[in-house]
Amino acid sequence: MSAHQPTGGLPIAGEQVPPILARLVEIVGPRATVAAGIRAGHGHSEAYHAARPPDVVVFPETREEVQAIVGACRDLRVPLVPFGAGTSLEGNTAALQGGVCLDMGRMNQVLAVHAEDMDVRVQPGITRKQLNAQLRDSGLFFPIDPGADASIGGMASTRASGTMAVRYGTMKDNVLALEVVLPDGRLIRTAQRARKSAAGYDLTRLFVGAEGTLGVITEVTLKLHPQPEAISSAVCAFPDLKAAVDTAIAVIQSGVPVARIELLDDVMMRGMNLHAKLGLPEVPHLFFEFHGSKAYVAEQAGTAAALAGEFGGLGFQWATTPEERSRLWQARDNTLYAGLALRPGARAMITDVCVPISRLAECLVATAKDIAESGIIAPVVGHVGDGNFHLLVLLDPESPAELSRAKAFNERLVRRAIALDGTCTGEHGIGLGKMDFLELELGEAVDAMRLVKGALDPLGIMNPGKIFRPAGPNHGEQP
Amino acid sequence: MSAHQPTGGLPIAGEQVPPILARLVEIVGPRATVAAGIRAGHGHSEAYHAARPPDVVVFPETREEVQAIVGACRDLRVPLVPFGAGTSLEGNTAALQGGVCLDMGRMNQVLAVHAEDMDVRVQPGITRKQLNAQLRDSGLFFPIDPGADASIGGMASTRASGTMAVRYGTMKDNVLALEVVLPDGRLIRTAQRARKSAAGYDLTRLFVGAEGTLGVITEVTLKLHPQPEAISSAVCAFPDLKAAVDTAIAVIQSGVPVARIELLDDVMMRGMNLHAKLGLPEVPHLFFEFHGSKAYVAEQAGTAAALAGEFGGLGFQWATTPEERSRLWQARDNTLYAGLALRPGARAMITDVCVPISRLAECLVATAKDIAESGIIAPVVGHVGDGNFHLLVLLDPESPAELSRAKAFNERLVRRAIALDGTCTGEHGIGLGKMDFLELELGEAVDAMRLVKGALDPLGIMNPGKIFRPAGPNHGEQP
Repeated sequence: MSAHQPTGGLPIAGEQVPPILARLVEIVGPRATVAAGIRAGHGHSEAYHAARPPDVVVFPETREEVQAIVGACRDLRVPLVPFGAGTSLEGNTAALQGGVCLDMGRMNQVLAVHAEDMDVRVQPGITRKQLNAQLRDSGLFFPIDPGADASIGGMASTRASGTMAVRYGTMKDNVLALEVVLPDGRLIRTAQRARKSAAGYDLTRLFVGAEGTLGVITEVTLKLHPQPEAISSAVCAFPDLKAAVDTAIAVIQSGVPVARIELLDDVMMRGMNLHAKLGLPEVPHLFFEFHGSKAYVAEQAGTAAALAGEFGGLGFQWATTPEERSRLWQARDNTLYAGLALRPGARAMITDVCVPISRLAECLVATAKDIAESGIIAPVVGHVGDGNFHLLVLLDPESPAELSRAKAFNERLVRRAIALDGTCTGEHGIGLGKMDFLELELGEAVDAMRLVKGALDPLGIMNPGKIFRPAGPNHGEQP
Repeated sequence: MSAHQPTGGLPIAGEQVPPILARLVEIVGPRATVAAGIRAGHGHSEAYHAARPPDVVVFPETREEVQAIVGACRDLRVPLVPFGAGTSLEGNTAALQGGVCLDMGRMNQVLAVHAEDMDVRVQPGITRKQLNAQLRDSGLFFPIDPGADASIGGMASTRASGTMAVRYGTMKDNVLALEVVLPDGRLIRTAQRARKSAAGYDLTRLFVGAEGTLGVITEVTLKLHPQPEAISSAVCAFPDLKAAVDTAIAVIQSGVPVARIELLDDVMMRGMNLHAKLGLPEVPHLFFEFHGSKAYVAEQAGTAAALAGEFGGLGFQWATTPEERSRLWQARDNTLYAGLALRPGARAMITDVCVPISRLAECLVATAKDIAESGIIAPVVGHVGDGNFHLLVLLDPESPAELSRAKAFNERLVRRAIALDGTCTGEHGIGLGKMDFLELELGEAVDAMRLVKGALDPLGIMNPGKIFRPAGPNHGEQP
């Protein structure tokens, strides 16, 4: 096969071959493709944002290939978008300016498990479920659970968190070190494997949450945690949202290290009954999970149940077997489908904000009023221990009017959260969808981000048009 | 008083008045001083590094004053060194190129306690003990304890951690947001007060650990933690270092959330007996502390005691009253003086490294051999749950030969730690003392730090000559 017969039998379908392709084929052979179906599959996501396919998709297998690909893109000034499992929600991987999509899915190996140190070195394309499957016999696990089976590299890039962040932290807290290919092609390690360090700037945390705009992650060292001796899950119904939120605050303040504490509003409970046949009352609920020794789990659960009772909770229902527990959290992980069950044929605009927990009830109540006044259907599910909640705004995908109404609602939501000292995104990242709100939230701090971006990626080839627009007027894409 | 009569009665002692002084006096009046004694007090630290006094010391009281001072330094290209309590250990605040020392000690107010959210907004000059005194009745506390009564701004700047990091994390984990004056004089907030966020680059973590080289911290929002219902402390003697370390690994792996687990070697125990009259056997010890409910503390302590027994521990001795507990940890906090008691008249070179816990015994045993072969006295104290330990190399302050021998020993120690996948500093920062080792540890990643520094501080006025040398030959100061 010549260097210019690029796609290993994959059809180019009459489209123009981009000049970068020859260089990529020299590097990875048939693992560079312009096949329309593959490009299309890398241009959309689970988000509501319009699809923007890349010109080429490339599947590297080694860090050296990634370095060569970055070098080729730099030489030809071609944009480059790192891609994990495609489960992000804010258009984070849309190829706004075309260019190369770097699908990291083939770099999905566990490189080393250090059981004594409770850490693991992995390639970025491995998903969290794949990782936990391989860790099953180690006595350890990786707790960060954003619901979707996201890739570890993608989770690092969006600073993912999810249901267990209240106990185990977010990706920011669980990444020990990264290997990164910089936009200039150099390979760096951001830290050693020691549990902590005060050695220079925290490059690890700089790349965690950078959404692929500062470089390509080629390896991740993660903290692991002991598999708990005992796990106990329960659900509790509440007469209203405020009672549920007040219970959550009291549980957190009591020092109970709850592993999960999830809020689902009455609308979401209706969707979950439709989708997962849970048969639970359609009022606000908290879903709890406790980890620890048997005695300590019982103590935690007792404290939480007593506090729920004080705030009007209608009693704990226990998921006593592993199967019941699994069914419960599977249903929680599928809230997207539960939400969609409320309006067959709809698509969901999924948004997330996070406020100080003391402002959460106020934020939720005002948002519920806004939903009612807007005439939209928008179930709520939240990582209430962190003050973080999601809304699924159900849309007719064919109706521009509905999209526009949803966007206006989302903007009011974000402004409300920011006014309450909250953030425009607790865990989905900025991507495209929250770009205007970042400036609203952090003001001139965004200029400091621009300076960092300009220093590390002066040509602007890494995932351009995400997080913030370049300085000056009329740059970048409109979200 | 005219703008050019600067020091409010403080003597200038015949020295030349630096041109920056007039500008500073316009901003803060007599709170800018060139008094020799005050300058000298801001040029040295508890470290062994040579004193380098600033030309002027200024005591701002507001963020606006800090902005104006940074602006004046920028206009006149004068170096600026932020200064907290002066307890850093690697020459982090030495005024290598003279210039202005910004003593933040007057900005020491608690601005807001949010008890429901378990966070607090403070000015950077408040010390950790001052903060905890003010939190006493809130049911909350700030756990990070580096031993010295450091300022919160300084602790953020050096990414401090200390004895409770194993349970509560380091400053990286406990700073929610910062207010920072950038080198260009602009004031930014790095984050809102929400518990987590995925909104753009993690500027908070970029400034945590930047040692004042990227800007001046003017406000810190910290996570707080519930005061534990019960606290229990114990000490346990071990026949050798390895038995103590193996116990620590087993305790961490068991999932016991130990609040403190400190290793002290036989030499340090001798010093502690001399200094604090502890009357404990002069063999390696672990000092433990457990936090939680009464029942859970008892369970944790039982698990730890059983594990210590398995590894040859010689039995737990409990500090049952608050007074005994206080005496124990006070003695631990005073290990510097305990160490110095081993050689009256000596000064200590204090160094710290951190390795993966699985490599800790190997690192400690090799280091003990090196100490014996070097003929030095160097007691060990370590935050063993994190793999982090300190050595106090006792020196005759008048002997260049001893200093040189100690530096060579320190370099071997650091190289040993790095070879074991560890870091040249677990918690003291790079400052001057570890500058050459940062490059050894992280290679070209240091260039990425230089790019960030150049972007945010293009004139190089912020704490110059620290962490790394500028790119190119013959730049910066030799440590």
